[in-house]
Amino acid sequence: MRIALIAALTLSSGLAFADEGQWQPYQMPSIADKLQHRGIDIPAKQLADLSQYPMNAVVGLGYCTASFVSPQGLVVTNHHCAYRAIQYNSNTEHNYLAEGFLAKSQQQEPSAGPNERLYITESVTDVTKQVNANLSDEPLARYQGIERNKKALIKECESDDNYRCSVSSFHNGLEFYLSKQLIIRDVRLVYAPPESVGAFGGDIDNYEYPRHSGDFTFLRAYVGKDGKPATYSTDNVPYTPKSYLKINANGVKAGDGVFVAGYPGSTSRYRLTSELEFASQWLYPTYAAHYQQKIDTIEQMGGADNGIKIKYAGTLASMANRMKKLNGLLDGFKATDIVGIKQNRENDFLAWLKQDKNANQQVIAELESLLAKQHKLTQTNYYFENAQSSTLLSAAKSLYRLAKEKQKDDADREAGYQERDMKMFTARLKRIDTSFDANVDKTLWLQDLNEYVDQPLKVKVLDNALSRASSDEDLSNKVAGFYALTELTDQSTRLAWMDKSPAEFESSNDPFIRLAVALHDTNMQLEQEQKTLRGKLSVARPAYMSAVINYYKANDWPVYPDANGTLRITYGMVDGYQSADALYKQPFTRLEGIVAKHTGVEPFNAPEKVLNAIKANDYGEHRIGSVYQDPRSWFCKLMSCEAKPNEFGSVPVNFLSSVDTTGGNSGSPVLNGQGELVGLNFDSTYEAITKDWFFNPTITRAVHVDVRYILWMMDKVDNADNLMEELDLVKD
Amino acid sequence: MRIALIAALTLSSGLAFADEGQWQPYQMPSIADKLQHRGIDIPAKQLADLSQYPMNAVVGLGYCTASFVSPQGLVVTNHHCAYRAIQYNSNTEHNYLAEGFLAKSQQQEPSAGPNERLYITESVTDVTKQVNANLSDEPLARYQGIERNKKALIKECESDDNYRCSVSSFHNGLEFYLSKQLIIRDVRLVYAPPESVGAFGGDIDNYEYPRHSGDFTFLRAYVGKDGKPATYSTDNVPYTPKSYLKINANGVKAGDGVFVAGYPGSTSRYRLTSELEFASQWLYPTYAAHYQQKIDTIEQMGGADNGIKIKYAGTLASMANRMKKLNGLLDGFKATDIVGIKQNRENDFLAWLKQDKNANQQVIAELESLLAKQHKLTQTNYYFENAQSSTLLSAAKSLYRLAKEKQKDDADREAGYQERDMKMFTARLKRIDTSFDANVDKTLWLQDLNEYVDQPLKVKVLDNALSRASSDEDLSNKVAGFYALTELTDQSTRLAWMDKSPAEFESSNDPFIRLAVALHDTNMQLEQEQKTLRGKLSVARPAYMSAVINYYKANDWPVYPDANGTLRITYGMVDGYQSADALYKQPFTRLEGIVAKHTGVEPFNAPEKVLNAIKANDYGEHRIGSVYQDPRSWFCKLMSCEAKPNEFGSVPVNFLSSVDTTGGNSGSPVLNGQGELVGLNFDSTYEAITKDWFFNPTITRAVHVDVRYILWMMDKVDNADNLMEELDLVKD
Repeated sequence: MRIALIAALTLSSGLAFADEGQWQPYQMPSIADKLQHRGIDIPAKQLADLSQYPMNAVVGLGYCTASFVSPQGLVVTNHHCAYRAIQYNSNTEHNYLAEGFLAKSQQQEPSAGPNERLYITESVTDVTKQVNANLSDEPLARYQGIERNKKALIKECESDDNYRCSVSSFHNGLEFYLSKQLIIRDVRLVYAPPESVGAFGGDIDNYEYPRHSGDFTFLRAYVGKDGKPATYSTDNVPYTPKSYLKINANGVKAGDGVFVAGYPGSTSRYRLTSELEFASQWLYPTYAAHYQQKIDTIEQMGGADNGIKIKYAGTLASMANRMKKLNGLLDGFKATDIVGIKQNRENDFLAWLKQDKNANQQVIAELESLLAKQHKLTQTNYYFENAQSSTLLSAAKSLYRLAKEKQKDDADREAGYQERDMKMFTARLKRIDTSFDANVDKTLWLQDLNEYVDQPLKVKVLDNALSRASSDEDLSNKVAGFYALTELTDQSTRLAWMDKSPAEFESSNDPFIRLAVALHDTNMQLEQEQKTLRGKLSVARPAYMSAVINYYKANDWPVYPDANGTLRITYGMVDGYQSADALYKQPFTRLEGIVAKHTGVEPFNAPEKVLNAIKANDYGEHRIGSVYQDPRSWFCKLMSCEAKPNEFGSVPVNFLSSVDTTGGNSGSPVLNGQGELVGLNFDSTYEAITKDWFFNPTITRAVHVDVRYILWMMDKVDNADNLMEELDLVKD
Repeated sequence: MRIALIAALTLSSGLAFADEGQWQPYQMPSIADKLQHRGIDIPAKQLADLSQYPMNAVVGLGYCTASFVSPQGLVVTNHHCAYRAIQYNSNTEHNYLAEGFLAKSQQQEPSAGPNERLYITESVTDVTKQVNANLSDEPLARYQGIERNKKALIKECESDDNYRCSVSSFHNGLEFYLSKQLIIRDVRLVYAPPESVGAFGGDIDNYEYPRHSGDFTFLRAYVGKDGKPATYSTDNVPYTPKSYLKINANGVKAGDGVFVAGYPGSTSRYRLTSELEFASQWLYPTYAAHYQQKIDTIEQMGGADNGIKIKYAGTLASMANRMKKLNGLLDGFKATDIVGIKQNRENDFLAWLKQDKNANQQVIAELESLLAKQHKLTQTNYYFENAQSSTLLSAAKSLYRLAKEKQKDDADREAGYQERDMKMFTARLKRIDTSFDANVDKTLWLQDLNEYVDQPLKVKVLDNALSRASSDEDLSNKVAGFYALTELTDQSTRLAWMDKSPAEFESSNDPFIRLAVALHDTNMQLEQEQKTLRGKLSVARPAYMSAVINYYKANDWPVYPDANGTLRITYGMVDGYQSADALYKQPFTRLEGIVAKHTGVEPFNAPEKVLNAIKANDYGEHRIGSVYQDPRSWFCKLMSCEAKPNEFGSVPVNFLSSVDTTGGNSGSPVLNGQGELVGLNFDSTYEAITKDWFFNPTITRAVHVDVRYILWMMDKVDNADNLMEELDLVKD
């Protein structure tokens, strides 16, 4: 059904993108008509202006998005985005993860931790010319020239150390933009529900819907008394944001237009069909099998040893998440012939290209030839790279590389090894203590090594290092020897290596250091091959994208760039979806759904206070009669209608919309047509996982926490009156 | 949500039953207004008349329902109801279960097997007076009197051996009706799809929806040349039914009224709350645990031995089905406070009863006291009865009982031991050969015996028979000895015991015969206790039901009796349902859903010919544009509406309606308002399993095969032109 349906959609309407698009804010005026059609009345020009409401209230967390919601620097984001902050403040006496936390006054707001930051994007500047200045024609030199130019731009921008700057590639290297972000260094925890609300459903419900997650937490930005960013101090004062979001206490109904602002991480929508084929037929299945093996091993070892279980809990959770994403990708490719759809589109483009006399007809052939090389390189290096998977070997390799890079001027060092990176570098070395067990690491590495020796592609230096007497020799003892003799399991030893010279590495007896040194030249050579290829791709990809953009313009289709972690806006409609034949997922869930899912066993262990308020029907003004528009509305007329019970009669918990999001959009404000906050984005549905490659408007839905659930929790469950008074609530 | 919703429904509308009810045909005129409201235009009087269309086209199979669909005795029922007939004709050369079967002419129609029968109900007569004639006041004698009167009525009715007769209790013994059914003894197989269509989804999809099962098979009734029932003979001719159902090739839409005629087995809707409490809190959980243990044991032993696997396949399938039903009951009681709802209703009834000066105020107290005794008896006998679970012991017990009963006149024998029962008795003894393994039976019996000896309620004769030296003595050897020494594993030995005298049993050395003899008196004593209690209940239950019916009448609510395996009519509406919060199950599934579920692995292995026809969009005139009524219809106006894609654009496979069915309704014709066939009933949804106790109109849905799928299969997949020509197709 899906295949037929989608084929019909794409063939009949060509490339009419529905609500697809993660738009750069400056592009909003170019899609003003689409926004208006969706009922987004706030002027497109206003949305394009980062110094105006609402965009100047949007905040980055580095890995998530958030927004200001009060004149006193109050910030709202997802519970899972603030997880580290809550964990940081939890101890055996006060387990805020389990119990939740509410500061009844600003004096009670603790630091979210020394590493928490808020980033406010103040400007985004086109620096394409500067990045492309003085580039060599030789591929490796060209790659290095681009890196050098980017680093120079960042260095200049970061001369004021209240700012973090980054240069991002748009349209695969066709354009470059410099983002300048104010850094708030004193972030405090204000209000978090218990994990049993904030992560209700846990891993089981991850990527699923119907959903009942209270995935929200409030933080507050603090600055020095002079109003400038400062590290944590009791003398600091709440930050006064340029603006903060109004909150619409009446939320949205099905069919309402909404938009989302945030920092989506990465998509691959403009990649060639051959790239999708490589990913869907080799990369994802290979990764999935490899991941599953690792997960099984860690679970088995953790089952027998509680210490391992605790240390690897975070690793396992993130592996489970990635595994579910991989399975979602593979299932999605099975359900819908995305390769076929993309090939059809590509054929249309190629046909158009052929009749354009001015176009570079070689653009595709050149790119395809480079991609074929890249895919081959990925495949041939796969086992060799896995054979270096030991956590301690990785640490040794990074440390030796650091020693080598330190011999250069800071500006000339590889990204990741500059002075600005050293804090993160140290943190990574320290973190090994809490997330590493030598037995687990050894077992996983041995599996990878055995896979390497069992396949034909050999790398001499590694074979020499393993020094097996015969191809039958078991590697267990050898590997055990590495872990028995190394001193890198000791944190201070690891950190001490940060200050040592290459010569000291080269004369070390630590087996992992010795292996890192032995593999270094080969790894550098592989890296150089990759960089040379990237240098070539830095010409071929932009040339291809330029042709694609010309094709879009000739058809009068607006073009948005793939997600790259920079600030974007996406719009859509509150809407349910057809999840499978005869299975329709409605756009809103309600409080009673929590009671129905509650078993008392994590992750379905809703707190008593929540259950009691629901059982007592203590909904107050947050109860919504209907979440559907009048059947006579344009929406119902357009779509035709289907029977359903008339009454909602509850507080909406989560809702769905057709906005175009991806990882990084977590915590993003969901705004109504007037730019008022109506929810927080926190997930997308399982059927939508393939959207990184192809946006299917019939099944792609993002999952949001309804602001009415947040207000009900504050009002009826947690008595957060102090915070509610701070908010600018609109009731219409 | 469910709790609140249902409470609201039941409290606000009192006992307004929506589409609830398994009505006796004669009652139809009393609910004529309800039928008309649902758009069932065929006159209620006509439906009440078993000699008129459509009721004279409805056929019983004993355990399922079917209907005539051609003037030449063609019958349609479920694939799972005709399973034995297909299996009977399958062999290594022609595996009709796997391949399906189609007779292209009547000459090619094989016998469905010597035991297959069709039953046509010709009359249903009130025999309450006759059953209640000359009854003693003494409970046991009263029970025996009722049995004697029933047997006399049956014997008289069955004087013509073309008829099967039965006397059924209605309203728990308040009324009795005699059913007289013509027996068709020559049944033949005509057309069955492959199991991969007929049971697509298998056990996994059992009780589930969305569903994509082609659960249909065609049989044909044959009679002697004189038109009278006859056993199989090549000289026989197709039976000419009094009438046969028209088939509406355009099927139904959401909101259409439908009705179903058939033989529902058993419901408990009028039981007291205390009975529901006993069932939901003791009986079902106890049975579920006991069943699960047996299933686990059989699966484990079958995993190691393919012979066991084959022998117990049928047992396991039916246990899995019963286990899913038990789980559905337990989940349903968890999701909805049915005890609370019934208690509320009972309280209303008690309040009404109290103000009725003429009513017998003791009616409830008397019944409750007897029920308490009955529940206690069930609990105390539970382990002792399980301790007799060995298949060979059961056989021995029945055989000894038969020897004893044979000493009486046929009319005085216990039901099941009369001459009319001997064919079935023999068949049961024979069947042991194909569904029994001594090792499995021994293991299961040992588990039950161990449970018996580990609990405090002891039965002396059993303890003596086990003759354990101490309470620690392991029973394995003892039990092994039973199986080593018995000769009952031999079929001819078992059958020979049917003709032996009690004295021969009493002097036998066979350990199971000896144990059966030893336990006989105790078992008879327990049976007598049960019968005495039933004799008391045969007064108390009708008294209670009489008061309930008066209460209903006072409120002007129509009353239907609980299901008891007799012919009933139920009506309802084609409709989806809210399966969980934000999860709506739509009323129709489509062909493309088969492709989406297809994995190639049983039970999701749709045949190539089906997949190819779907992929080729070979839908012909069976393609339906929309299964929804016009949004301006009364239905949509009444219910309010919800967005959905406008187009169906496929062949409907299965559909849902709110008719009130239970086990025995499998294969029942689903008829539109004009009495034309639009589908076959074959299952109900998981959420609806508790309907045996309480009909919840919001979630109770029956699942039907859409007649358009049957016609598409005949037309586009199997080229069954010969059969299609026989059908009376209506296209409007």
